[in-house]
Amino acid sequence: MIFKSQGSSIKKSNSISSNKLKDIYDLDSYEFTQKNTGEIFVCSKRKELDLIELDQLLQTVGWSRRPIRRVKRALDFSILVVGLWRHDEKFPRLIGFARCTGDGILEATVWDVAVNPVYQGLGLGKELMKYILKELKKIGILKVTLFADAEVVTFYKRQGWILEPRGSKCAFWYAN
Amino acid sequence: MIFKSQGSSIKKSNSISSNKLKDIYDLDSYEFTQKNTGEIFVCSKRKELDLIELDQLLQTVGWSRRPIRRVKRALDFSILVVGLWRHDEKFPRLIGFARCTGDGILEATVWDVAVNPVYQGLGLGKELMKYILKELKKIGILKVTLFADAEVVTFYKRQGWILEPRGSKCAFWYAN
Repeated sequence: MIFKSQGSSIKKSNSISSNKLKDIYDLDSYEFTQKNTGEIFVCSKRKELDLIELDQLLQTVGWSRRPIRRVKRALDFSILVVGLWRHDEKFPRLIGFARCTGDGILEATVWDVAVNPVYQGLGLGKELMKYILKELKKIGILKVTLFADAEVVTFYKRQGWILEPRGSKCAFWYAN
Repeated sequence: MIFKSQGSSIKKSNSISSNKLKDIYDLDSYEFTQKNTGEIFVCSKRKELDLIELDQLLQTVGWSRRPIRRVKRALDFSILVVGLWRHDEKFPRLIGFARCTGDGILEATVWDVAVNPVYQGLGLGKELMKYILKELKKIGILKVTLFADAEVVTFYKRQGWILEPRGSKCAFWYAN
């Protein structure tokens, strides 16, 4: 996934009434408005995801498909699962996603950060990450880690992530 | 933690009867014997850890202390916690440790790999990692990740870990 723009053309907004926001997206949801078009986007850690829709989203960013059954289990055992929705009162559409694994206290690792290419460049990826860090802070996590693909290293660096602290390297092991 | 030796002076052994091994270290435990001294070491994912002893072990490798309460919670929410013991029928001593977080199906991340410096250079760190990968494979995990400190990058490389696949970088974020 490539976040094309450094700037942001979205801002936090309150266009949806708090009752309606809670009804559709549940508690702890945050909305943003695109300055030019007035389109509304919402981050939510509670609104349930449709796994088919998630699979389609991940395909738009070019990721290989994973069996739905395995994805379901992975989400069930994640400590935080966040959807980014293009708001619609009847049919909110999933246009972004991220999740974290971890022990919920000392370590949290961010995985599968994705924003539908159609909506990249607006600053939504940045808001999604801010939302995740805020929610992790709420549960007392002081350090968050992730493995950044080569294309998004700059994206994370700009947001204050430290790359390879003290010469650390990421290491992957694949089963045969 | 620095694993000093490339070689190994330990080998898999069967010095402890399987009943006794199970009694002391529970199921899925593996023992190793040091070729020169006959000392026996056991990897176990089930034998309960004394948190004070674990804290002392982590101090021997120079890690900053963490509140025991937080460590307990972190272990409770880890998907795999492994102790490496110097065998003694009455008082096995914890001389190595590692744990994994993850969703238990798609992602597993290894943390806190430590071997008491007195026992480094025998190949125990390598056996500890082999044990972890074997146990993760058992539950169907096909990809394992870790953040390798600069000093141990070579250690992991030698064991077949891929460093920074496709230019990936590890990124850390610290709460203020």
